[in-house]
Order: sequence, then structure tokens, then C-alpha cells
Amino acid sequence: MAVSVPAKSEGRRPKGARTRESVLRVAVDLASVEGLEGLTIGRLADELKMSKSGLFAHFGSKEDLQLATIEMARQVFTEHIVRPALAQPEGFPRLWGLCEGWLGHVEAHIFKGGCFFTAASLEFDSRSGSVRDAIADAMKKWLSLLARAVEGAKKAKHIKSSVDAEQFAFEIYSLAMGANWALHLLDDKTALQKARVNILQRILAVATRSCPPAKKRR
Amino acid sequence: MAVSVPAKSEGRRPKGARTRESVLRVAVDLASVEGLEGLTIGRLADELKMSKSGLFAHFGSKEDLQLATIEMARQVFTEHIVRPALAQPEGFPRLWGLCEGWLGHVEAHIFKGGCFFTAASLEFDSRSGSVRDAIADAMKKWLSLLARAVEGAKKAKHIKSSVDAEQFAFEIYSLAMGANWALHLLDDKTALQKARVNILQRILAVATRSCPPAKKRR
Repeated sequence: MAVSVPAKSEGRRPKGARTRESVLRVAVDLASVEGLEGLTIGRLADELKMSKSGLFAHFGSKEDLQLATIEMARQVFTEHIVRPALAQPEGFPRLWGLCEGWLGHVEAHIFKGGCFFTAASLEFDSRSGSVRDAIADAMKKWLSLLARAVEGAKKAKHIKSSVDAEQFAFEIYSLAMGANWALHLLDDKTALQKARVNILQRILAVATRSCPPAKKRR
Repeated sequence: MAVSVPAKSEGRRPKGARTRESVLRVAVDLASVEGLEGLTIGRLADELKMSKSGLFAHFGSKEDLQLATIEMARQVFTEHIVRPALAQPEGFPRLWGLCEGWLGHVEAHIFKGGCFFTAASLEFDSRSGSVRDAIADAMKKWLSLLARAVEGAKKAKHIKSSVDAEQFAFEIYSLAMGANWALHLLDDKTALQKARVNILQRILAVATRSCPPAKKRR
């Protein structure tokens, strides 16, 4: 997701912006557990033990709050998953970095209730409006980032040139989404590790001889 | 899902039961679009243009209504997907019947907002309580039905005996879930057909020589 993350110079930033950021970080976690639709200014005020009027100064409406929460979730996602993967060389390392990063962020509970975007997607997929559009936009960017990484792996000759990048990216993401679902709904603690093995196998099935080995996780 | 569907002898059934059934059919569609959490007695009364007190006579509480709605969704799912597939011979035909049935029910809008259970799963996966337990129970039964069909295909020697049935069932379901998501959130009209090709390829990749060909869809 092509979102810039603010530089870590907390001291120089105005207090209002910092408060807004901490409020939104709580909103992201709350929404990942209880759903984005349940995220009202009243519910968030309760959670933060702040006054509703204090929150209204930051967000004029429930929709503003939801949109700002999605934007914050994108920043967190970029920082924890996208940026480290893009620091890897193009080809298999970057592709696998994105996959590992995604699975790792669920394991590490970067969002309290699992993947923020998967939950929000399914919650809003049959609705219309700007909140749904913001979620769909985030997901399209993520899928196209994954597809570009698959293309990159073809270009680096790490995987076969016959692979359909979009289709393959979609398969990988489906497996990851399934794992998130099995972990949270079915309480299957092995789901993420199974998905890791599974996705790696799918990649290795189309790998060429010049594909470098997968690095051990840090 | 091992749920019995009432015999179609409407005439002999008391009016109260028939009303309850029609009300629940609307509740299922509403929940598939707006989410199960938004399904209150007040919201449903609005949609049906019925009095809230009339609905309270059928369902004592929001939770009762949610649980009855899940049960109705299971009955619909059994009737449209499970029963036709179980009528197929064990082996590849039954396994493929379940996959086709699942993709077909999304295409045919059997539930207005896509797959009722996928949406409900993601909505309730980070909660606790009897509604979440009912959804998790339904999904476990569906996954184990799929896994039994994979086992059946191994037994019939239509697919290789080395296939891990649970893992394979999970992969198939992830691909189907991903397609439902792409169709509804990303408005990708090709998603279900892509998933159909994709799932069939995954099965054919482990098929033996004695596997019968996939029948054309009716």
C-alpha cells in the first residue's frame, strides 16, 4: 500500500496530531475486534475514557472516524509489512518477504483482532459508500503489490515466466486469508504455520533452478 | 452441514411455523448484506413492515433471532449445496459437486450478500458467545464434510492416496472464500469462474488415471 508513514520525530510534532494518532491506534484495534461498523465516537470515547466532545474535535462524524481509522491501519500495515519487504531484493526474496510479513503480522497481533483489512473487507463487501471504497482501494493496492512482486520474481528468473502474476497473487492471498480465518474463528493455532508451508510450496512448485533458498525468519 | 431440511408439506404445517420460516428467510438475506450484528428485532420489523411486538412473539431476544437466522442459513445451505452433492457417487463427483455447489450458490445469489457463513465468520471471529459458537460449529462441519469428500476421492482411487485430506479441503475452501471476497469487495465478476478453474486444476494435479472427467454444469 503506497502510504507514507510519518517520520519518527514525535518531539517536533504538535500535540494535537500526536493525540489524534494515539486515538486512531486504539480505534484500529477496536475495529479489528468489534468491526468497523461498531466504531462510533461514543464507543471509542468509552474505550479511551475521553469525553465525546473531545473526540468530536478530532473527527466530525462516525464516517470521518472510520475513514481516518482505515488510513491509520494502512500506515501500520505499510510500516510492518510493506516497507521491510520492499527493502528485500526484487525476486523471490521480496515476494516471500510480503507473504512472511503478512503471516507474521497476524501472528504478532499487530492488529488486536487479526488482519484489520480482511475483517473490514468482509464486513463492508455488500455495502456502498466511501468507507467501502477506501477498504476496496486498500485491498486492490495490496493485491497489485503482490502481483508486482510475482512479476518481479519472473523478471529475476526466480520463478517460471509462464506464471500468471495476478492469478498467482490471488491464490497466495486466498491461502493467507483462509489461515487468518481458521486461526480466529476455529482457534486453529497451527493455521498460520500450515499456510506458511503451503504458500512456500506453491511458490517452489513454479520456482526455477536459480531461485535462492528461503531465509529463516528472524 | 448435518441439518435436516423440513419436508415440503407447507399445507399441513401450522401457520406460525410458516410465518417464522418466511421471516427467517428475510433475516438471512438481510444479515448476509448488512451483517449479523446489525440484525436486531427493530431492523427486521422495519424491513418486513411488521410490528416489533409481533416479532418478539417469535424471537424473545436479538440473540435468539441471530441463532435462529444461522440455523435457517444452514438449512438453505444444506438444501442447495450439501444435499445435491451427497446425491453424487463418492469420489471425485461428490468432491467436485461440493465445490461447484459452493461457487454456484454465490453466483446464484442464494444469499443476497454472497456467502452468509463467510461474512458471519469474519464478523464474529474475534468475539465470544453462543452466536460465534454456532457459526464456528457450522464452519467446522462444512470443512469436515469437504475433508470427508477428499477422503472419499482417495478411497475411490480418483486422487492420490498421499493427499492430506484436511489440508487439501482447507486449500480448496480458501480459494473459494477468496473468490467470494473478490466478487463482492472488488466487484471482480470473473472471480468465481477463475476459482472454478483454479480448484479443478488443484484437484486434477493430484488425480489418478481412473479419475472420471468433470461433468459440465447443468
